[in-house]
Amino acid sequence: MHEKCGVVGVSLTDREAARPLYYSLYALQHRGQESAGIVTHDGFQQHEHVEMGLVGDAFDPDDLDTLNGANGIGHVRYPTAGGVNTCCAQPFSVSFKSGSLGLAHNGNLVNAEEVREELAELGHAFTSNGDTEVIAHDLARNLLEEDLVRAVKSTMSRIHGSYSLTIMHDETVLGVRDPQGNRPLCIGELEDGYVIASESAAIDTLDGELIRDVKPGELVVLHPNGSGYDTYQLVDESRTAHCFFEHVYFARPDSVIDEELVYEVRRDLGRTLWEESGVETDVVMPVPDSGRSFASGYAEAAAEDGADTEFAEGLMKNRYVGRTFIMPTQDERERAVRLKLNPIKSTIEGRTVTLIDDSIVRGTTSTQLIELLRDAGAEEIHVRIGSPEIIAPCYLGIDMASRDELIAADKTTEEIRDEIGADSLSYLSIEGVTNALGKDHDDLCLGCVTGEYPYDVEGEQTDRDVSRPIIDNASSADD
Amino acid sequence: MHEKCGVVGVSLTDREAARPLYYSLYALQHRGQESAGIVTHDGFQQHEHVEMGLVGDAFDPDDLDTLNGANGIGHVRYPTAGGVNTCCAQPFSVSFKSGSLGLAHNGNLVNAEEVREELAELGHAFTSNGDTEVIAHDLARNLLEEDLVRAVKSTMSRIHGSYSLTIMHDETVLGVRDPQGNRPLCIGELEDGYVIASESAAIDTLDGELIRDVKPGELVVLHPNGSGYDTYQLVDESRTAHCFFEHVYFARPDSVIDEELVYEVRRDLGRTLWEESGVETDVVMPVPDSGRSFASGYAEAAAEDGADTEFAEGLMKNRYVGRTFIMPTQDERERAVRLKLNPIKSTIEGRTVTLIDDSIVRGTTSTQLIELLRDAGAEEIHVRIGSPEIIAPCYLGIDMASRDELIAADKTTEEIRDEIGADSLSYLSIEGVTNALGKDHDDLCLGCVTGEYPYDVEGEQTDRDVSRPIIDNASSADD
Amino acid sequence: MHEKCGVVGVSLTDREAARPLYYSLYALQHRGQESAGIVTHDGFQQHEHVEMGLVGDAFDPDDLDTLNGANGIGHVRYPTAGGVNTCCAQPFSVSFKSGSLGLAHNGNLVNAEEVREELAELGHAFTSNGDTEVIAHDLARNLLEEDLVRAVKSTMSRIHGSYSLTIMHDETVLGVRDPQGNRPLCIGELEDGYVIASESAAIDTLDGELIRDVKPGELVVLHPNGSGYDTYQLVDESRTAHCFFEHVYFARPDSVIDEELVYEVRRDLGRTLWEESGVETDVVMPVPDSGRSFASGYAEAAAEDGADTEFAEGLMKNRYVGRTFIMPTQDERERAVRLKLNPIKSTIEGRTVTLIDDSIVRGTTSTQLIELLRDAGAEEIHVRIGSPEIIAPCYLGIDMASRDELIAADKTTEEIRDEIGADSLSYLSIEGVTNALGKDHDDLCLGCVTGEYPYDVEGEQTDRDVSRPIIDNASSADD
Amino acid sequence: MHEKCGVVGVSLTDREAARPLYYSLYALQHRGQESAGIVTHDGFQQHEHVEMGLVGDAFDPDDLDTLNGANGIGHVRYPTAGGVNTCCAQPFSVSFKSGSLGLAHNGNLVNAEEVREELAELGHAFTSNGDTEVIAHDLARNLLEEDLVRAVKSTMSRIHGSYSLTIMHDETVLGVRDPQGNRPLCIGELEDGYVIASESAAIDTLDGELIRDVKPGELVVLHPNGSGYDTYQLVDESRTAHCFFEHVYFARPDSVIDEELVYEVRRDLGRTLWEESGVETDVVMPVPDSGRSFASGYAEAAAEDGADTEFAEGLMKNRYVGRTFIMPTQDERERAVRLKLNPIKSTIEGRTVTLIDDSIVRGTTSTQLIELLRDAGAEEIHVRIGSPEIIAPCYLGIDMASRDELIAADKTTEEIRDEIGADSLSYLSIEGVTNALGKDHDDLCLGCVTGEYPYDVEGEQTDRDVSRPIIDNASSADD
Repeated sequence: MHEKCGVVGVSLTDREAARPLYYSLYALQHRGQESAGIVTHDGFQQHEHVEMGLVGDAFDPDDLDTLNGANGIGHVRYPTAGGVNTCCAQPFSVSFKSGSLGLAHNGNLVNAEEVREELAELGHAFTSNGDTEVIAHDLARNLLEEDLVRAVKSTMSRIHGSYSLTIMHDETVLGVRDPQGNRPLCIGELEDGYVIASESAAIDTLDGELIRDVKPGELVVLHPNGSGYDTYQLVDESRTAHCFFEHVYFARPDSVIDEELVYEVRRDLGRTLWEESGVETDVVMPVPDSGRSFASGYAEAAAEDGADTEFAEGLMKNRYVGRTFIMPTQDERERAVRLKLNPIKSTIEGRTVTLIDDSIVRGTTSTQLIELLRDAGAEEIHVRIGSPEIIAPCYLGIDMASRDELIAADKTTEEIRDEIGADSLSYLSIEGVTNALGKDHDDLCLGCVTGEYPYDVEGEQTDRDVSRPIIDNASSADD
Repeated sequence: MHEKCGVVGVSLTDREAARPLYYSLYALQHRGQESAGIVTHDGFQQHEHVEMGLVGDAFDPDDLDTLNGANGIGHVRYPTAGGVNTCCAQPFSVSFKSGSLGLAHNGNLVNAEEVREELAELGHAFTSNGDTEVIAHDLARNLLEEDLVRAVKSTMSRIHGSYSLTIMHDETVLGVRDPQGNRPLCIGELEDGYVIASESAAIDTLDGELIRDVKPGELVVLHPNGSGYDTYQLVDESRTAHCFFEHVYFARPDSVIDEELVYEVRRDLGRTLWEESGVETDVVMPVPDSGRSFASGYAEAAAEDGADTEFAEGLMKNRYVGRTFIMPTQDERERAVRLKLNPIKSTIEGRTVTLIDDSIVRGTTSTQLIELLRDAGAEEIHVRIGSPEIIAPCYLGIDMASRDELIAADKTTEEIRDEIGADSLSYLSIEGVTNALGKDHDDLCLGCVTGEYPYDVEGEQTDRDVSRPIIDNASSADD
Repeated sequence: MHEKCGVVGVSLTDREAARPLYYSLYALQHRGQESAGIVTHDGFQQHEHVEMGLVGDAFDPDDLDTLNGANGIGHVRYPTAGGVNTCCAQPFSVSFKSGSLGLAHNGNLVNAEEVREELAELGHAFTSNGDTEVIAHDLARNLLEEDLVRAVKSTMSRIHGSYSLTIMHDETVLGVRDPQGNRPLCIGELEDGYVIASESAAIDTLDGELIRDVKPGELVVLHPNGSGYDTYQLVDESRTAHCFFEHVYFARPDSVIDEELVYEVRRDLGRTLWEESGVETDVVMPVPDSGRSFASGYAEAAAEDGADTEFAEGLMKNRYVGRTFIMPTQDERERAVRLKLNPIKSTIEGRTVTLIDDSIVRGTTSTQLIELLRDAGAEEIHVRIGSPEIIAPCYLGIDMASRDELIAADKTTEEIRDEIGADSLSYLSIEGVTNALGKDHDDLCLGCVTGEYPYDVEGEQTDRDVSRPIIDNASSADD
Repeated sequence: MHEKCGVVGVSLTDREAARPLYYSLYALQHRGQESAGIVTHDGFQQHEHVEMGLVGDAFDPDDLDTLNGANGIGHVRYPTAGGVNTCCAQPFSVSFKSGSLGLAHNGNLVNAEEVREELAELGHAFTSNGDTEVIAHDLARNLLEEDLVRAVKSTMSRIHGSYSLTIMHDETVLGVRDPQGNRPLCIGELEDGYVIASESAAIDTLDGELIRDVKPGELVVLHPNGSGYDTYQLVDESRTAHCFFEHVYFARPDSVIDEELVYEVRRDLGRTLWEESGVETDVVMPVPDSGRSFASGYAEAAAEDGADTEFAEGLMKNRYVGRTFIMPTQDERERAVRLKLNPIKSTIEGRTVTLIDDSIVRGTTSTQLIELLRDAGAEEIHVRIGSPEIIAPCYLGIDMASRDELIAADKTTEEIRDEIGADSLSYLSIEGVTNALGKDHDDLCLGCVTGEYPYDVEGEQTDRDVSRPIIDNASSADD
């Protein structure tokens, strides 16, 4: 399960934008590890450097030195399943009649094909299959006849789906969030300028202050050279569609998204999990690191209820397990799990155990971990999950899994419990999620746990009145 | 002095195009060492692989395996002075309303900016500064309303300058040569298909037979899968403008260009050089490897005239001197020359010497070589050059040098002789060139040696009636 | 502060040793990231592959395929300050009169120079400055006249200092631990053989069972092809000198060292820390990840004492911060800390905070973290450290810091508190450590916290009767 | 057919040795492309950098900067058949009782195993299989009791075979050539010091003057810091065994070896070839570049005899064909030849041709070239080879081929002519070689063309009285 992208943009008074952008991308690295890119503008011309790999590998000091200008945007992109390719690395840059454009996109359009075909009818030729080039061409075309704000509004009225964008038009940096606010985007203030980013942790990294989330349907225009910013509420929809999984899984715990600190949300989800399905065992342990915040809230709530249960680490993670690694052969597979996570016998042996994680996608890892715990001598193993069952894929910007691969797509919770080998298994309820998030069901995108989407996706149900034409099943689009 | 590009295209009956394209590019490597690329089409979709570096480094066997299809084009590009960049590597690919396009370009447009601006007015957005993207957009736009041949003709009527193109439109491979035929392009037959290439040596490499040069203003359309080809004389100009420097310097000696074998042309130029300014010395030696064919013709003519002069190697080249190399410090500079070329004392000491080379650009190397020969004990050193003085830059696709750097731009031959330290110096006359090439002065581009160009270049004189509007000084355009 | 090495050796019945060794080294990666190496023996000849870099980078599948044989040893090495060099990567291999030897060494000899000079007198020539080559030459020489066990014993009687070795003599794998048992070494059983390793986590990774620690002064000889093993107590000293810092800092939490699970020791040290210097604050938070086990024990003990203090994460770690990274400029330095650790305001703001870490070396990081917490609005900041003040360098195999750099070398705890800017600061007492470890003061090496060493190091005091001649200050030796 | 190594050593007055060594190795690159290394000594300590790859790849400027000292040695090594390995890259360095030693070796010992075993009996342990480590250990051992000159003499009395060595003992650079002078070694003077090198072209590169060849059995000792040098004739044998193939094939044409300029020798061999077996054809052409000097001498002699034959290039070499290259599949093989060498039809078609090369090893290339020439329309093809038939392998430092692979090992010249498809074929006679070299048959090593060696090689005949014990067939030793 991967977030597909992270975006950032900065305008500074008297300082080159390249290094702050570089450090911001470092802070957003968890949102995309396939490629990294920065585009700046120095008042005269646009500079860009986009490369495959992690931020630390994609740039060397010389690269940063060539990225002149106090204004710029940046992007990180996730690893695709099949293989990497340079064509879709971002920001995507074009020059056109009235200047240059750079775009960094997080999200997924559901009508990209439709817009692409309309533009092709007008003679446009495309160098990639990405949504981003479609947005760039549409915006460039609008800018032939409209001013910047109107042109963005026109483009927003044509594209449909999930998008948080940072855009560079000559030396002006813009931030745009789709009318449902599906992907996060926020604005912050620096000592000497302003910053727009996918997550507030990127603002923290620059010693800035989070001002607020960019509102759904809002455009933020940073004044060149950091002197201020304007906002325009270009589209106003009655309902939003915030992705709840950003809170559960993707975002950094130290980010504030839609006014909630992710770490606290996860602790609250953990507390709710205890309330809904708590079980008193000798020990409560997280799957590191994904289950830690949940487990800590869960254990705390348990202790407050007087449960006699210890909160301890029972699985130790090898922090060197990464990309470069010779995979074990089939009969060494079990060992592969122990390379990553090694059970601590003294925590487990002869004891009843509650294992906490944030979610179950395919169920493979859960099965392996439970087997590990059994081998280590656990008496009972109770699994508690800090989110509801994932029963349907994501079409809005997350690389989750196909429906076939989702263990909960066609199995009851009891069947899943049986398959992974746990003594008991409980997921958090959907109400538990909405309560912990303090949001209305109608303002969240819960498509992957309900099968009903706040957008019209071909072949899927929608949970609302959608006036937009249905075009295509966007699952194969890659941005 | 660098050729800017080499292009190729093949259509085969029952064989993947990728490997033949790869070997062709290897044969054209001398025309561009910065990047290499191949685009193929398998009937359903286009595949591409473009990468920085030499052909051997840019492709690995897996890359070739993904380039499916029996039809394809390829490109090699020269190293820019400032630094490499991926944006202008070719072939350049786009998808548009009615399919896909790939373009490989050798040459330089003189009105690229004008065409680009016209297209921008219509809403086009560009990802690069290159000429090639301009041609691609114009052609794609024409194809909205015209058939392939008419669309190419329309584009040819808009673009002005030097171009030899291989184009892939879906699975059809095309070859186009500009109306003046400035850059070479030829067509050949394989056992199982056809090939279009910058030089006939690429056809030889595929065990093919050269059919003929593509005519100036001609379009060649290969039938998909190698079943045949059609030609269309789309533009017919009364005069051509073949680049004479292809024969003198760029092309491989084993290529046939505009019906002349380059090796023989160089020997003839060498013979003419003897006739025009021969001097009887103890020994005649080439600057390796550039002067060898000239020197061999010169020595042969001398012998026929009964001159008692030995033809021998006097400078030995270190064939490992290449790209990766720690440059000597200032006071080690002289040694740097000897790393590349080491004098053979027995050939030189106490003897009168004629040193033959193909051209003098800046004069630095000549100066160093003459000093080397003096140190090795040469009694007299007579320099003979197989081409006229280069007095002006090239705007048509060769990276020569700026006017400031050209030693002959503002110096007489006597002044040059004095600067390089030779006892005598003679260049070949312009008539000598035209005679040896068997071409009329009016059918050659001799801009760099006359200062009069067969195209309208802003700030330069033209040697013909030009009806096309002058747009810009194209010297900074990069293709 | 870096552990200098990790070692492993395996003998298997009917399986190649290379892959198990590879996975073991992965499990020991935290003990050395500079180089990795494996030596195997297939009954006829020795195979080796040693390379700079992390285990995952140092080996590719082909490398493993060439490492034939069911018996082998492996090594990981730490990054040196100045720069990497291949000369000291291990295992170190030699061939000699009666076969081949491979050695992997963790520790530091104090009389390497002396032994080296004695061998040089006999005509030995050395290819490196390392201790390991000295041991190899001495052992090879002894093997000319003695059997294997006696030869090892003779070598042990000559070398003095800290060493845990795995040795490959032809196809026999040995494990040796120095008479004081300074560095850890343990033996485990696999389904089809035996394993010797620096830490038991490596045995876990191979799905093996820890048998026991190798005893100080003991030699373990694995029968080729995993059929069994013999042990020989070659040297018997009345006192041991286990490094207590292995428990506090270096070893993996899931390793059992000298019969204690490191995770539990750290939790106990945390509990002791509460007992010794507990302070009731709104929140207790670890420095991630080093302080987590300590903080969890501390918070648990506090809760049992009825303290109203929350255990929460207050600093979030960016797990992508690693080796490749463009360092911030001087005035971006503060940001560099926030790239690595970002404060969570809701945990900190307006609250009194206890920050727990395992140790303080130079004090720089502590100073920065306290400043971060103050900026995030902490009311009070109390620092509690799970080990005593480090007042002296390590000469026995850990790359700690020079005496000048150690903040506690010449400062009182109150002065340190003042320098790092905490409201209060307490270290664990030495008795706290010995109690929690369940070891006698006399059986531990506490040199870095007492300044008295269990070995004779020139210029330093010793805490015991040492009969061995003092040779040199070994601080510059590099193994 | 590969030369196995090149060596160099310099002592300078007031300049770092690293860069001159680097440029020297560049000049000797043709003698070894697998690895490159430099060892220097700055008066206090030895510095070294040895790496796989070409000189230009093995060193970066930082590497040179760390190689301090005005005295140093260097080495290049050839590519092994099976694969590269770092163990045998040179110079080989050791430290021992009385200082440090670095050795660079060109040649092959025939009794390395014997000396190794004697040293092993004395307790020596070896890190490699190479001859060089054996020489280093022996020399180090001798230096325990003897002064430098006597120690070298003792070592020379023990080792047997072919060797040209540069040695660094602390800051003293030595050069040693084996008593038969099998491999070349010469000494030169620089403005500010002295240089010892495999070939005089390396001296030229440093703007130095060749003084003379190092004599067989001679030791040259450079005074540290370039103030002078001493020579010692340590061993005096009545007969030498200069490798004639250095002149024919390996050495650079611009090197002077044993007082003969290689280029002139090759021209003379070409002249002799005409005298012995000249045939009057329309054209004489070299196989580029190996046959060029021979062909030029041959054609000149022909012209002097009044033969009506043109000297021309008929095969054009693609200078980009190198290491990185995707090999053609089986049925693309013929194309592979044309990638490397393309026939020039105008030189060949309808004409009788003499093709000149320096040698034939396996015969594969000759077969392919003759087929190419036939396809290009040659009427007759006469092959003339500038050396005798190679009928036996080399045991003295050249990687030629095994006896099985040598086409002339078991075929008559007529059979070879038939196999390669030529109309006639002649090799140069052995007398032709000795005459052209101006050396006595008894002073040359002609083992590969006579099957009789000037050393005792097990299983082979010797052409002289050899008093040394026969030890082993050295064909598998790798230096």
